[in-house]
Amino acid sequence: MMRELLLIGIGAGDPDHVTIQAVAAINRFDVLFLVTKDGTDELVALRRAIVARHRTTGPYRAVELADPPRPWRDAPDYRAAVAHWREQRRDVWGAEVRSELADGQTGAFLVWGDPSLYESTLAVVAELADDTITYDVIPGVSAVHALTARHRIPLNRVGRPVLITPARLLAGGLPDDVDDVVVMLDAGTAFATLPPDGLTIYWGAFLGTEDELLIAGPLGEVAGEIVRVRTEAKQRKGWMFDTYLLRRER
Amino acid sequence: MMRELLLIGIGAGDPDHVTIQAVAAINRFDVLFLVTKDGTDELVALRRAIVARHRTTGPYRAVELADPPRPWRDAPDYRAAVAHWREQRRDVWGAEVRSELADGQTGAFLVWGDPSLYESTLAVVAELADDTITYDVIPGVSAVHALTARHRIPLNRVGRPVLITPARLLAGGLPDDVDDVVVMLDAGTAFATLPPDGLTIYWGAFLGTEDELLIAGPLGEVAGEIVRVRTEAKQRKGWMFDTYLLRRER
Repeated sequence: MMRELLLIGIGAGDPDHVTIQAVAAINRFDVLFLVTKDGTDELVALRRAIVARHRTTGPYRAVELADPPRPWRDAPDYRAAVAHWREQRRDVWGAEVRSELADGQTGAFLVWGDPSLYESTLAVVAELADDTITYDVIPGVSAVHALTARHRIPLNRVGRPVLITPARLLAGGLPDDVDDVVVMLDAGTAFATLPPDGLTIYWGAFLGTEDELLIAGPLGEVAGEIVRVRTEAKQRKGWMFDTYLLRRER
Repeated sequence: MMRELLLIGIGAGDPDHVTIQAVAAINRFDVLFLVTKDGTDELVALRRAIVARHRTTGPYRAVELADPPRPWRDAPDYRAAVAHWREQRRDVWGAEVRSELADGQTGAFLVWGDPSLYESTLAVVAELADDTITYDVIPGVSAVHALTARHRIPLNRVGRPVLITPARLLAGGLPDDVDDVVVMLDAGTAFATLPPDGLTIYWGAFLGTEDELLIAGPLGEVAGEIVRVRTEAKQRKGWMFDTYLLRRER
């Protein structure tokens, strides 16, 4: 007998982004593991709401996992800091999974967007898995695709590549050989620091939710508006989840 | 009154990748537009099967759109050839949409994966839209996320970017500054032409279907096996849809 963990991609915010496969998984787990940290009560509540909406197989047990503090993005050795953070998570989560799941039971993590994209849950679960714990991944609609769908635009141009990058690698501007760049994990507003010539931005926040914000246009014309709208929304909500595509015309 | 077109992302092959939002859209259209070309009968049949599985609102009309021949990828001016092909599609599809949809009716295209990613339907529909035809995009699970889910791996590494690229741009090898590259539209086996040192490949074909094939390992060790398995499968099925991630260790 094994314990099983499911990493369930639930889409980028719209509860209707959940797939039929995810609904089946939501109906199959015994224990829902909910990662909690300061200021994420709303995200935890949204996960529970998604389960409530789609689960028809009866009650389940929810176990909250307190998240160790995430390292600062400007830590001197960010990768080492993240590695240490993951070790803590692996040890704490691993102990909880072993104590909360009986042999033959299934636990689940609901992951925003897709579990493979700038999301550390999968790496932690892969590390805590052993010969008594197996795991499976259920893909979801990622924020990248939610963004392009809401702006009704192709992600790539014909025959051209697309780069998905953390904001901090944008400091030097767009790479020479890629004209379509999706920026993730921008804790600030890195787009506003770029020379705007030739760049169009497609920005979205709280995609697929009632709070959704969409702004698109030439970067030089709309950057200020995005900064203003983003700041107001972050203040109002207490948190921010946004992403954007920068498109360069040649 | 307007005519409305829905571009519905239906996931990368597994019928259970369809989202709740896509199911709602499948129940809402009056006419299903099916793009046909030689050798794609199975793909058209799969689309009809997905509708049959999820539609509970009664019969619909299906209209087949013959696809003009797609330009060769090694055409001297590939972008111009694609532009001409799109013009043909815009004109032919536009005429069909105007004649098949009455005012106030909704038509739909079911698109594999996500409608934004290396998929020309959206660009064609955006061009044929006018003040009597509107359109909307419903995102889906893309082949990229289906691939990583089946291999149970993160797409990106911590703090690092990911490049999604057509195979023909790989000829010079991986870019210097990106170590995780997803290759799309590889009509051949471009991976087998790369110097394999330090590269791991995660390859998948017919993802999420009964014919799914998955191979992963150091490129130098598994490239030959992938070429062999891929050739056999393509011969057996008559077509091939595969994608892969190349990951470089530093």
